[in-house]
Amino acid sequence: MKILVLNGPNLNLLGTREPDIYGYETLADIETEMKAVFPEVELDFRQSNAEAELITWIGESRGIFDGIIINPAALTHTSLGLCDALKAVGDIVPSVEIHLSNTHTREEIRHKSLTAPACIGQIMGFQGFGYTLALRALVHAISK
Amino acid sequence: MKILVLNGPNLNLLGTREPDIYGYETLADIETEMKAVFPEVELDFRQSNAEAELITWIGESRGIFDGIIINPAALTHTSLGLCDALKAVGDIVPSVEIHLSNTHTREEIRHKSLTAPACIGQIMGFQGFGYTLALRALVHAISK
Amino acid sequence: MKILVLNGPNLNLLGTREPDIYGYETLADIETEMKAVFPEVELDFRQSNAEAELITWIGESRGIFDGIIINPAALTHTSLGLCDALKAVGDIVPSVEIHLSNTHTREEIRHKSLTAPACIGQIMGFQGFGYTLALRALVHAISK
Amino acid sequence: MKILVLNGPNLNLLGTREPDIYGYETLADIETEMKAVFPEVELDFRQSNAEAELITWIGESRGIFDGIIINPAALTHTSLGLCDALKAVGDIVPSVEIHLSNTHTREEIRHKSLTAPACIGQIMGFQGFGYTLALRALVHAISK
Amino acid sequence: MKILVLNGPNLNLLGTREPDIYGYETLADIETEMKAVFPEVELDFRQSNAEAELITWIGESRGIFDGIIINPAALTHTSLGLCDALKAVGDIVPSVEIHLSNTHTREEIRHKSLTAPACIGQIMGFQGFGYTLALRALVHAISK
Amino acid sequence: MKILVLNGPNLNLLGTREPDIYGYETLADIETEMKAVFPEVELDFRQSNAEAELITWIGESRGIFDGIIINPAALTHTSLGLCDALKAVGDIVPSVEIHLSNTHTREEIRHKSLTAPACIGQIMGFQGFGYTLALRALVHAISK
Amino acid sequence: MKILVLNGPNLNLLGTREPDIYGYETLADIETEMKAVFPEVELDFRQSNAEAELITWIGESRGIFDGIIINPAALTHTSLGLCDALKAVGDIVPSVEIHLSNTHTREEIRHKSLTAPACIGQIMGFQGFGYTLALRALVHAISK
Amino acid sequence: MKILVLNGPNLNLLGTREPDIYGYETLADIETEMKAVFPEVELDFRQSNAEAELITWIGESRGIFDGIIINPAALTHTSLGLCDALKAVGDIVPSVEIHLSNTHTREEIRHKSLTAPACIGQIMGFQGFGYTLALRALVHAISK
Amino acid sequence: MKILVLNGPNLNLLGTREPDIYGYETLADIETEMKAVFPEVELDFRQSNAEAELITWIGESRGIFDGIIINPAALTHTSLGLCDALKAVGDIVPSVEIHLSNTHTREEIRHKSLTAPACIGQIMGFQGFGYTLALRALVHAISK
Amino acid sequence: MKILVLNGPNLNLLGTREPDIYGYETLADIETEMKAVFPEVELDFRQSNAEAELITWIGESRGIFDGIIINPAALTHTSLGLCDALKAVGDIVPSVEIHLSNTHTREEIRHKSLTAPACIGQIMGFQGFGYTLALRALVHAISK
Amino acid sequence: MKILVLNGPNLNLLGTREPDIYGYETLADIETEMKAVFPEVELDFRQSNAEAELITWIGESRGIFDGIIINPAALTHTSLGLCDALKAVGDIVPSVEIHLSNTHTREEIRHKSLTAPACIGQIMGFQGFGYTLALRALVHAISK
Amino acid sequence: MKILVLNGPNLNLLGTREPDIYGYETLADIETEMKAVFPEVELDFRQSNAEAELITWIGESRGIFDGIIINPAALTHTSLGLCDALKAVGDIVPSVEIHLSNTHTREEIRHKSLTAPACIGQIMGFQGFGYTLALRALVHAISK
Repeated sequence: MKILVLNGPNLNLLGTREPDIYGYETLADIETEMKAVFPEVELDFRQSNAEAELITWIGESRGIFDGIIINPAALTHTSLGLCDALKAVGDIVPSVEIHLSNTHTREEIRHKSLTAPACIGQIMGFQGFGYTLALRALVHAISK
Repeated sequence: MKILVLNGPNLNLLGTREPDIYGYETLADIETEMKAVFPEVELDFRQSNAEAELITWIGESRGIFDGIIINPAALTHTSLGLCDALKAVGDIVPSVEIHLSNTHTREEIRHKSLTAPACIGQIMGFQGFGYTLALRALVHAISK
Repeated sequence: MKILVLNGPNLNLLGTREPDIYGYETLADIETEMKAVFPEVELDFRQSNAEAELITWIGESRGIFDGIIINPAALTHTSLGLCDALKAVGDIVPSVEIHLSNTHTREEIRHKSLTAPACIGQIMGFQGFGYTLALRALVHAISK
Repeated sequence: MKILVLNGPNLNLLGTREPDIYGYETLADIETEMKAVFPEVELDFRQSNAEAELITWIGESRGIFDGIIINPAALTHTSLGLCDALKAVGDIVPSVEIHLSNTHTREEIRHKSLTAPACIGQIMGFQGFGYTLALRALVHAISK
Repeated sequence: MKILVLNGPNLNLLGTREPDIYGYETLADIETEMKAVFPEVELDFRQSNAEAELITWIGESRGIFDGIIINPAALTHTSLGLCDALKAVGDIVPSVEIHLSNTHTREEIRHKSLTAPACIGQIMGFQGFGYTLALRALVHAISK
Repeated sequence: MKILVLNGPNLNLLGTREPDIYGYETLADIETEMKAVFPEVELDFRQSNAEAELITWIGESRGIFDGIIINPAALTHTSLGLCDALKAVGDIVPSVEIHLSNTHTREEIRHKSLTAPACIGQIMGFQGFGYTLALRALVHAISK
Repeated sequence: MKILVLNGPNLNLLGTREPDIYGYETLADIETEMKAVFPEVELDFRQSNAEAELITWIGESRGIFDGIIINPAALTHTSLGLCDALKAVGDIVPSVEIHLSNTHTREEIRHKSLTAPACIGQIMGFQGFGYTLALRALVHAISK
Repeated sequence: MKILVLNGPNLNLLGTREPDIYGYETLADIETEMKAVFPEVELDFRQSNAEAELITWIGESRGIFDGIIINPAALTHTSLGLCDALKAVGDIVPSVEIHLSNTHTREEIRHKSLTAPACIGQIMGFQGFGYTLALRALVHAISK
Repeated sequence: MKILVLNGPNLNLLGTREPDIYGYETLADIETEMKAVFPEVELDFRQSNAEAELITWIGESRGIFDGIIINPAALTHTSLGLCDALKAVGDIVPSVEIHLSNTHTREEIRHKSLTAPACIGQIMGFQGFGYTLALRALVHAISK
Repeated sequence: MKILVLNGPNLNLLGTREPDIYGYETLADIETEMKAVFPEVELDFRQSNAEAELITWIGESRGIFDGIIINPAALTHTSLGLCDALKAVGDIVPSVEIHLSNTHTREEIRHKSLTAPACIGQIMGFQGFGYTLALRALVHAISK
Repeated sequence: MKILVLNGPNLNLLGTREPDIYGYETLADIETEMKAVFPEVELDFRQSNAEAELITWIGESRGIFDGIIINPAALTHTSLGLCDALKAVGDIVPSVEIHLSNTHTREEIRHKSLTAPACIGQIMGFQGFGYTLALRALVHAISK
Repeated sequence: MKILVLNGPNLNLLGTREPDIYGYETLADIETEMKAVFPEVELDFRQSNAEAELITWIGESRGIFDGIIINPAALTHTSLGLCDALKAVGDIVPSVEIHLSNTHTREEIRHKSLTAPACIGQIMGFQGFGYTLALRALVHAISK
């Protein structure tokens, strides 16, 4: 099984960026944890600040990946293009949306997700630990 | 560790109620799964159609339970009282919100959660499997 | 044919409560009228101030009743749980929504029904007489 | 007793128009049913695609008709003029609003009725059968 | 000077229709008053329940009339077509909007005028007497 | 008959202020015109930039004036206190609202009047000429 | 004089629940204070987490109590049924709404009260002390 | 192939009406152009200011016409009845919506089309030339 | 203890102004009552129609007064400046908001208070008697 | 004549992406068709998932291209920057907006176009065939 | 060059009022700084809590001042009259709006400025230092 | 001191793009001016049409730059990611937002800034001159 793990804008700063909201783990820490939990799953872990790059990666995932875990970060609330990309491949490459923080405790604009309707489900609020939960959920869904 | 698992209105009908949305598992199936995954955790698994009973159970959880997993069902979107109850005990008894379906793919009124701001995090869209994910998340958060 | 007739919050006060809006008939008067019109239909006539009790009764109606007539009173505009309950049994136990007053002539909040989308149809404004119309409509729909 | 039965835009197409929403009965079928149920009531059954014609007919109803049954169709949601007409004669010629479909299960714009506040009550969702219910309701209200 | 005086839906009922709102004068009374005040102005006084007829009359006014006084009644709040018609001829045939009642004291939907932006000005709340004020205003504006 | 004519903020600048919107007449010109039209009416013509002064003048009008003509200028859209003052004396000292420009052709915020519901009626769009129309309307209303 | 004092959801937790918002007094403390202030008034002091129980108690208050003091807690903002109950008995058993905190300083959803329009008045922000103020207000109103 | 070309309110004034928005072509010019482009298609070119007449023509198009080109003008934004008519025949007689101007550059109320959801597609902004584009689009769609 | 009692626009008319809403008591009556209840408290009782004067008085209250009772009247709903003034001195000179009527039973615009978030609490609906309640509340809060 | 044809995010997936919405044609098919229809026009056909690249291409079009055909895809509804780019060159390089699907039949968020106000006109709903219509429209507009 | 510097409600309290938001500088400190930066500019530095006084000062500025720097404080968000005054003189006496705090980080109501559209530009968030920036900007604009 | 000056989409077109809104200066002109005013400050002046590139530059600014001046252009109103980036570094690298035009005089969508809450302050409306003001403000803030 091969899973694409996508991380959106500013997540490269993880660990230093507003740690009371996002935690002290870096993306590398999270990748390590995920690989420890599911060593048998091949993970392709990427980060980009560019909506376009994320869209392109999703569009190319067909036939290569079995599923996508995506933390769209700020694009969650503003990118209809990301939603379209996830829908375009969703029948073959299902996705799970993950957020580090509980967006419902933050500003109004972060309560609405444009990308969630294109995913199987959504996990939020458990900081880095949420990624391994998302991986479990995705592996379970694909295996059904 | 002792966890209270609360299930809101109409979840007693699970398995027969609109299975294309909620899946074919019953609440008993879910309880069995959870206990299989974390045999060392003591689970108190309850269901009620009454907002008041759920509020009372949460209010009494202090000093008895280490955490709460709650699927508020329709009350997610209409009960400010449930939110207040979760907040009232939240410093000592943290909670995780769980939904069987991906509410973002349903009617507008189901996109907003009144209870989520009182929880650590939220998991939705993985049907019965989401409960064991919620348990993992809660155990992880309590153990930190 | 067996029909469950459900009456929501404050309808126990009927006849004394704001009679210029709700009329002078009591619930008992309405029950008597309904039985007079359709003596061959078995009616189970209930009232509750509790959303949870109404939800429970609807959930248990499967296999016992052929249809439901429901006056959700104030819950019409605030209870998504009642809507979910009616939908959960609706394929087998269809329902008709009834209101004593014409809610369109009252406050804005009473113009929107959360429960109507889960019913076959809706009748409002004819005070107690509306119940027998609802019964006719339901018997007709079930007999089709 | 003399009742004016008004049918708004596109109802002339009834029976062929989106039958899964509006049913297979034609207006003529409905008229026949109504006359069968209340042979002692004189019915004047009309259809018009024109808001103006409906307004004129309502304005002229005073002194000629004892009541009005009106299915304003799409005008329900857009015609304030129809509302004004029904109010203008309403103290002498009361009216009942009827809809074939349950508009609450359709688009948002069909959830709000501009004409209902000018009527005694409203009946919706029972297709052609609703007309005879409306007639019963109106006869009952006039006879009080 | 030749003025077209247009009256919209239900104004043919004036004098009998909700007299506490609209007053006891008929349209004929108003016409008589206007002619008494400005005997030298040729008035063409018309009423129609049909938006289309009003639009047509406005469209044909060019080269025949020097100005228009219009009471669009309920169409004030719903007819963009009437607005378009008044704008189409407005550079040559200016118009004044008149209302019998003070619409600001009535329902919310009557606070917004779709037609007023196409007129020179608006007069409301003085019942029939407002027509002669409108005529004065229009004659004054044309004479400038 | 004694009439109080009130003019709100910035109207002292009339004649120089955005003349394409407000015209070239000064307040003094308007006062002269009004007195020419109704020499038998005693006019007390005042201007103030202060909401409080206008409120005080209205509050003191009881027993001194027979009616009020008021151009609240920008306060039309923001002063609830002016509305309260006009209502407080309105049973004895009726008022008419006047605007120089047609506010419906301007910014959205100028489409809603907070003061109009406290007046008999409203006249707008005829620049300075509108004041004499307002005076006619008020004299007519008081004389009835 | 006999007064019913009703306390809504989560108020049983008072003293321990978010004390910076609600204060350190328990409901029992408040009851004691009230009795100390008005020893001649018979107080029936109750708490319930259930909207239905509160509605039932209000419905039964007629003929037994002279007035109601109610702190609907979270139900203030979501229960139309409680509003209906208070209105149903309000001509005979007047009520006063009380809140411990100043809800205007909290989330938007807590700025609007569904129950206040059914009460004589409202007191908020003085923590437990507000109950004795409410009692004074109610006794004064009943004694008038 | 037989195509019905419908033109709504005020389009009879084309060529003289606000030419900077709508262009200098008349409806007759447009008809001539269309016939020149598709001489083999039989065009029935009509204009009406009446929503009802347009609805009637659409309702009668079944079995006579192969498609409809409609410029609903102001009715685009206010007529749900026109939408219903187009939907009623749409499975057999498909339609294309055409606008002379680019409505997105005009007032807010002209940004939303009630009729477009009942059409195959929409063309706007190319003045009279858009009609021949619409004809091409419709012929192409029917021929598929 | 020294308390500043501020009364906003139109309250000088109290006793004559819409007495069914505001009661028959004058401001002087209320002042007398307050002094009778707390003879040991020094009251400075003022009224102004001017937002600016009220703001100035509040700004000067520091070091002179121990607290403020304010009935901002119509300014409650429109004056952000009054809110800023109360906040500017609030840490030293706490305030209580008082309304004679229950604003929740009046127009929508009166449901929202801009000044309440700057006060300790709010009392409304008990007419003149509310002032003495406010005084009790303020004295209690200051004495804590 | 030289035309720039721009295609936004996810359009590279055309033909495989949700074909019931977007059709089975690929971008290459569309390019071939366009060239067949207007062999004399030089087309520069591009696709990018990146808003920035589209903006840059538009900014560089001045002096090179005579017009732009743009299908902004999801960016239609979220990119103000694209709108600004089109406006920046629009006086010299006019543009036409094209959509494959009829966006009015899809989610609410797709009903509003941020880019359309910067274009001459808009064509939607005719799948790939719409591109050749857009080309005709653009050539016609440029040739005028 | 002569510049009028206007300061709105509560700014007289500067230095003591919520210093974490507004800083510790007094108005006098700011005036001193401004004069130090542009000794050759004659500054008339004023403060008023009264909207009316500010409006009057602006209205009288014509022919006396070359420009206005205005900190409307709370009136920024509620005074349309101030906007009208600035527009009335704006062609001759241009203005710059200044705020001490960054209003975008505060409550929603402070995000919208009614006065900014009447000014050349706006500067906010730099506390007292912003005044000298505003002066630079104004001097630069006037000198162009 | 080292300052990063960021310019968003379409600003490379400055000087040719809608000069009545944005002025005739190019970005190079502005850079020259800024360097002239503060020769001792090291400026890194960049422009990008790509939100991602701007985000990356901001993310990398830590430890390299002392502050950021940003003109996000159209991204001001649509990019939450830019806001997140500015917040992520804001405690160490403070920023100032700058706009050439006064956005309050333009379309509604340009009145709200998503990025401003992440900046110290905002300057708008002074065209190119505003950049040097922003630099002064930033240098002053950093030097404090």
